[in-house]
Amino acid sequence: MRLHWSPKSPFVRKVMIAAHELNLTDRIELMRNMVALTKPNPVIMADNPLNKIPTLVLADGTVLTDSRVIIEYLDALAGGDRLFPVTGPERWVSLARQAQGDGLLDLLIIWRNEREKPVAQVSHAWIDAFEIKAQATLDRFETSAPALAASRFDVGQIAIGCALSYLDFRFDAVGWRRGRPALEAWHDGFTARASVRATEVTDD
Amino acid sequence: MRLHWSPKSPFVRKVMIAAHELNLTDRIELMRNMVALTKPNPVIMADNPLNKIPTLVLADGTVLTDSRVIIEYLDALAGGDRLFPVTGPERWVSLARQAQGDGLLDLLIIWRNEREKPVAQVSHAWIDAFEIKAQATLDRFETSAPALAASRFDVGQIAIGCALSYLDFRFDAVGWRRGRPALEAWHDGFTARASVRATEVTDD
Repeated sequence: MRLHWSPKSPFVRKVMIAAHELNLTDRIELMRNMVALTKPNPVIMADNPLNKIPTLVLADGTVLTDSRVIIEYLDALAGGDRLFPVTGPERWVSLARQAQGDGLLDLLIIWRNEREKPVAQVSHAWIDAFEIKAQATLDRFETSAPALAASRFDVGQIAIGCALSYLDFRFDAVGWRRGRPALEAWHDGFTARASVRATEVTDD
Repeated sequence: MRLHWSPKSPFVRKVMIAAHELNLTDRIELMRNMVALTKPNPVIMADNPLNKIPTLVLADGTVLTDSRVIIEYLDALAGGDRLFPVTGPERWVSLARQAQGDGLLDLLIIWRNEREKPVAQVSHAWIDAFEIKAQATLDRFETSAPALAASRFDVGQIAIGCALSYLDFRFDAVGWRRGRPALEAWHDGFTARASVRATEVTDD
């Protein structure tokens, strides 16, 4: 299978962390392709007309997006019930955590695109709202950090961990660690995992 | 269970169509609450700090977001395997279709927010890119319309159908039907379903 990939995309990173955890990296051929909001890339759009990565192309030509679907597919390929609790209340908690991590990442990516516009086009009303929602979401993560630390490593942890690491990478000014010691301690454990270290991003 | 809800949100509509299909509407208490990108709503943020709907609050206080997670939860509550194929290739096709429908909706919602900014802030580079990606995604839906028409009604159909109906509601100028007769025919069948008629949106 082939994966449209870039080392700096946090959603791609989610998939690669999962692939490392599931020992599937040698089955995935990486195709490095850049995406940008205002630069539709024909190579990616041939497989995913939404111009987003990660996009996974299976041997039979089936195209799987987005990161959640790809991770669930990889999990099943590895036997299942590894990064997704299959049933019960744990499944809903895990999926809801993933949705919160993904939701924060979606917000951050629009925020970054907005702040990189020509100055006259930047909406401070948008950016102020992004800041409020991001800080409130981080406060919620701090509250749930003890439960997160007590849970097994799963898609919820991957999504929240990737969102925090993306803040480190692109949003230093948010200062996500300030006043959030439990979340910081949990993230320290996250970044110590082999799968997370193997997918570290560095700026150009 | 309580659902933060608005009749005009296409992601809420996905959930409500699912609830009608699964005969669960009488178990869901609707709380009407507006969300807007630049107006964080404290009532919603108390449950979902990302300020998004749909947000479902279970009797035990567990909060489930987003529409995908909520629909999968409702499906399980109704016995399972109704709107989500549980295993096999059909599951990946269904989830990938849902992701494409959701992805188009995500794009449309940012597009709408962008075009409603003060004129000097509107990025035509963004809007041009949104148009290219939306048209390409619709072309892909047209190609897959025969397979869609041959599939059972599931989350993939709900997401794509809601995206097309949202284009009718907010993006008449996109002209999604032009040159896409198979998709139009499929959408006619979608809109004829009782669950879809019961959740029709009307502009103020």
